[in-house]
Amino acid sequence: MPLIVTGSIGIDSVEAPTGTAEQVLGGSSIYFAAAASYFGPVRVVGAVGEDFPEPFFNTFNHFKIDTEGIEKRAGSKTFRWHGKYHDNMNIRDTISVELNVLAEALPPVPMNYGDSKHIFLANTDPTSQMTLLNSFPNRTLAIADTMDLWINTQREALLELLKQLDGLVLNDSEAILLTGDTNLIRAAEAIEKLGPQFVVIKKGEHGSLLHHADGQVALPAFPAREVVDPTGAGDSFAGGMMGYLASLAEDQTVTLHDLKRAMAYGTVVASYNIEAFSLDRLMNVSRADLDRRFETFQTMLKLES
Amino acid sequence: MPLIVTGSIGIDSVEAPTGTAEQVLGGSSIYFAAAASYFGPVRVVGAVGEDFPEPFFNTFNHFKIDTEGIEKRAGSKTFRWHGKYHDNMNIRDTISVELNVLAEALPPVPMNYGDSKHIFLANTDPTSQMTLLNSFPNRTLAIADTMDLWINTQREALLELLKQLDGLVLNDSEAILLTGDTNLIRAAEAIEKLGPQFVVIKKGEHGSLLHHADGQVALPAFPAREVVDPTGAGDSFAGGMMGYLASLAEDQTVTLHDLKRAMAYGTVVASYNIEAFSLDRLMNVSRADLDRRFETFQTMLKLES
Repeated sequence: MPLIVTGSIGIDSVEAPTGTAEQVLGGSSIYFAAAASYFGPVRVVGAVGEDFPEPFFNTFNHFKIDTEGIEKRAGSKTFRWHGKYHDNMNIRDTISVELNVLAEALPPVPMNYGDSKHIFLANTDPTSQMTLLNSFPNRTLAIADTMDLWINTQREALLELLKQLDGLVLNDSEAILLTGDTNLIRAAEAIEKLGPQFVVIKKGEHGSLLHHADGQVALPAFPAREVVDPTGAGDSFAGGMMGYLASLAEDQTVTLHDLKRAMAYGTVVASYNIEAFSLDRLMNVSRADLDRRFETFQTMLKLES
Repeated sequence: MPLIVTGSIGIDSVEAPTGTAEQVLGGSSIYFAAAASYFGPVRVVGAVGEDFPEPFFNTFNHFKIDTEGIEKRAGSKTFRWHGKYHDNMNIRDTISVELNVLAEALPPVPMNYGDSKHIFLANTDPTSQMTLLNSFPNRTLAIADTMDLWINTQREALLELLKQLDGLVLNDSEAILLTGDTNLIRAAEAIEKLGPQFVVIKKGEHGSLLHHADGQVALPAFPAREVVDPTGAGDSFAGGMMGYLASLAEDQTVTLHDLKRAMAYGTVVASYNIEAFSLDRLMNVSRADLDRRFETFQTMLKLES
């Protein structure tokens, strides 16, 4: 069954030492969906405004993203984000953010989406995330992402959501903010106590960390010589991860080893995504490319003599 | 043949959120030697002052460190360092540092040390490092560490040293300082152009990165739930790494794969080292313990389905 995602669908403007991109396609659910699409069908639920450029739907088509759940809402404006990266690409400033339609109600979930079993709640407000989650009582796997904004302003709603999740994916700084512990393993343990069976902490260029009842896994990022635009790296990581998990047999219990391989696929998709602005790089990456880089990553991490 | 190391031998005082340690054994060559000792015999060349506590020699004996090259110099004082870690253990302040005997000439290299083939120049001034290096014209492998102090104040001497090295090991911030590039892979490439055939960049809790003519390898750190004292983590990493390399067949050319396994051993020794102050944890770690954790690390990084 197709996996389903909600989150932001945006028009981004990005300034970086490597160049600029004006009013390009972005948003957490879009980076997620493009990344997940390598592993199987993806449905997106979300709203855009009447200013949303029609050509962006060509990109959705390229990735075979099911857009029936995307509502183009008359009288509303699309979510917009304008960010600027420092010379050190690990640091960015938000120049402006306009929530616009993201502050309005989610569109209804199409009736025929009801059979989705794998639900990803990409970064958006926890109330919208909970709304979508509640539409899928028969789900088998629900994972969410979040961010500092919601941890700071909607902690209670977020804590309610956490109780319903199988897994949480978030940045290192967000894990520290949520728990108050600067040791990421203890922070992940603290989050596990809030509900999710597993926690994946994204560390950008430093890789990712999984905490699960059966143990911890740390993976490095794929070594990247040229980073053009880190925007969407975390979302495409999550998309590759969840896409891989959704491609496993439906009755399969997700093990630590499955999650590790899923994180590695997420790592590889993200490593492509940052090689160009917006979705420009993924537009030219095939599943065979992904598998080749996965193989390289696997060999890089092989320690047997 | 025993590997040989020069660097600091110190009396450390450490303040951390986890406790304090007053006037304990420390120094780059000591952490290095203790870590390397798991893989074979180690010789240390360096001077201490007349204030150097005799019981510290018991620790050297425990690790079977050859101390013939350690001179207890009358009229001199031992190198001392006093540091304080923040709540976030990744940040530390140097409260005070007294170079003392470290600012004086190196003691002579004992005649019978001449057969050492593996030379490690732990963190100390580049002139002392060059002096030791020149004593071993028949070496097969020479690797050095350095730090921001020498990059800032003795860049020319350091650049001369780099031309003579097989490998350089340094922190991420130091690699950026040395090259002016915040992308670590490009920084490593730039360092390779200065002389060393390979470069290992240490990233603390984020692991390590190898650049070599045959490719790049990124490894995570071993997930650490309890960090008591990070002092010496980088030196014990280097010791585990170099100790493993020195244990390989003498006529063996060091390959990318050898270096990767060596880094993994370094990672594992360092992960034990940070579990207590000074060398307290390594005093209670056996080679079997190391091998067990290496096995865990290897399994953690295994991506095959």
